[in-house]
Amino acid sequence: MNKAIQPVETIVFREGRVLMLDQTLLPLEQVVLDIESAEQMWQGIRELKVRGAPAIGVAAAYGLWLGVKDVPDSLTRAEMLEKLERVHDYLNSARPTAVNLSWALKRGLEVARQAAGGAAELKAAILETAHQIYRTEEETTRAIGEHGVALLKGIEGVLTHCNAGSAATVGLGTALAPLYVAFERGQRIHVYADETRPLLQGARITAWELMQAGMPVTLITDSMAAVVMREGRVGAVIVGADRVAANGDFANKIGTYGVALLARAHGLPFYVAAPFSTVDFATPDGSRIEIEQRDPLEVTHFGGRATAPLGVQVYNPAFDMTPAALVTAFITERGVVKAPFLEGLADLKSSSEPSAAPVT
Amino acid sequence: MNKAIQPVETIVFREGRVLMLDQTLLPLEQVVLDIESAEQMWQGIRELKVRGAPAIGVAAAYGLWLGVKDVPDSLTRAEMLEKLERVHDYLNSARPTAVNLSWALKRGLEVARQAAGGAAELKAAILETAHQIYRTEEETTRAIGEHGVALLKGIEGVLTHCNAGSAATVGLGTALAPLYVAFERGQRIHVYADETRPLLQGARITAWELMQAGMPVTLITDSMAAVVMREGRVGAVIVGADRVAANGDFANKIGTYGVALLARAHGLPFYVAAPFSTVDFATPDGSRIEIEQRDPLEVTHFGGRATAPLGVQVYNPAFDMTPAALVTAFITERGVVKAPFLEGLADLKSSSEPSAAPVT
Repeated sequence: MNKAIQPVETIVFREGRVLMLDQTLLPLEQVVLDIESAEQMWQGIRELKVRGAPAIGVAAAYGLWLGVKDVPDSLTRAEMLEKLERVHDYLNSARPTAVNLSWALKRGLEVARQAAGGAAELKAAILETAHQIYRTEEETTRAIGEHGVALLKGIEGVLTHCNAGSAATVGLGTALAPLYVAFERGQRIHVYADETRPLLQGARITAWELMQAGMPVTLITDSMAAVVMREGRVGAVIVGADRVAANGDFANKIGTYGVALLARAHGLPFYVAAPFSTVDFATPDGSRIEIEQRDPLEVTHFGGRATAPLGVQVYNPAFDMTPAALVTAFITERGVVKAPFLEGLADLKSSSEPSAAPVT
Repeated sequence: MNKAIQPVETIVFREGRVLMLDQTLLPLEQVVLDIESAEQMWQGIRELKVRGAPAIGVAAAYGLWLGVKDVPDSLTRAEMLEKLERVHDYLNSARPTAVNLSWALKRGLEVARQAAGGAAELKAAILETAHQIYRTEEETTRAIGEHGVALLKGIEGVLTHCNAGSAATVGLGTALAPLYVAFERGQRIHVYADETRPLLQGARITAWELMQAGMPVTLITDSMAAVVMREGRVGAVIVGADRVAANGDFANKIGTYGVALLARAHGLPFYVAAPFSTVDFATPDGSRIEIEQRDPLEVTHFGGRATAPLGVQVYNPAFDMTPAALVTAFITERGVVKAPFLEGLADLKSSSEPSAAPVT
């Protein structure tokens, strides 16, 4: 191992404090927020200061603890649980659609209900649960990286879209995790980062976190991906996923489907890296995935300034669906899945315990 | 004919004055400049207040006249020609790479040399030449529209990239001309305009000029083109061209190649509309077309504000090359050319006189 990547500290518990990077200010400012209350955490999640499903889950778990850490230890167990439920409901309202948010809050509450003792013991159990969620998410990204690195053998240039990196998780990220692991092992890696309009997560976050890690990165507009592929600058494409259907169709940031088609046209492998929890077995295929439409202002304005005619009609889907047929493989913490995906994903599901990352 | 399109008046001669739209302020402000001197015209061309090869040619032709219109009629013929040559050289330095600029200036100078009479007659000949160039360009765009409209039969949604419209020419534009003509004839047309990063010509200019003309237009980011195609929102793609090689490979705004691949993947026709003068028979194929690399600031900044990390490496080709194999047809003022393009384009070349636009 040449050099260990220091992942972005999206959120970290240190010396009794919850510290969180304010991602809305990236890349121009790197401000670390000292989150002292559930209210501040609610605001941070709501305003996308923390983003990316795994990172939001960790933030919520610590937020639950922040909401009760200062209540008197003299509270009865029943009073404490009642208080916890109120904090749970409150934090859960920050971003109603983020699955990891409600999952992490629910887990914290359940652990408290099952814990023995009074208020002090419940507080400790909740904090320990947050730490556990943190460690699990961190291990998941490392395992995705370890499983995915084998697919990068002999490849230097890799194209990615949006940010499925360290900044979206705790740890090494999802799409970027195999690249970080390859880089740690001394492999030459050069990332081409699509800027990812309209919200520029590629320019603002992916390019930034790769530069922080000392990895070579070239920023391009989304419209340059095709020539970057034709010119042989990249040997593979790797992206994250917001939801994977049982058959391998998946939803991800708008533009992913186009990149997948371009990869196919140039004979390049197209990899999707995601925690196994992203696979939604209740959704049989991509046609059932609803696509969120977002505010036209994201397209017509930038930095508060109009860049399009007033009143122009805008189509602004936040995500698109890429059919499984365009996917070379899924990379999860449980292993790599190739076609046929329906069977491959189901097989990994039935392996109830995550397989250990391969020893290397 | 339902309603005649009023093209954008990029540049117009009216009541003795040369009026030019300042395109750098679009779409937020529509300022018409009263250009009174060759110096002002030089600045307008240099600073992209006027853009698009055909429009630049017209601007240069009027600029030549502006440079001599106020010299005394008592000047000798030799003095007048000497003055004209200086104005010619000066204006030609505004944007050295724009072919139409030098072509229009050269033509004005040659007409003056061949004209009979003294300074007053030469001035008149130069002004008349500018008018002629204006009319020819205008007729060319109309003929492109008339030839292209047949290809749009039964099609409502059309995707375009960048701005190859009225604002880039005098008249109806190139890529947009067939759409304007179809719309004039009462056909339902709905344009999907790629915003065209990095310089947003689609958002700032195409969307604006279509709205001016009362045509339905939906603005999308470049990354949305693929889903717009898959969802059946468009039945064809039409773009302009900066240079067409003898075999039909062509260079156009960055992103065009990707759009062409996506059109092919969705079985959509992909049309290229351009004046026949854009065909460069001295360039056998696209591999010989040099691609200009532009300033990284275009990608890293948005509206004057940094949106990417300081010092990030950027790849910013201004154009890309699309292979002829992805082109369904070229639409020129001389007619529509389908594959094989090498023969088809050569045939149109040998038809030395432009064919008249079809009577409709």
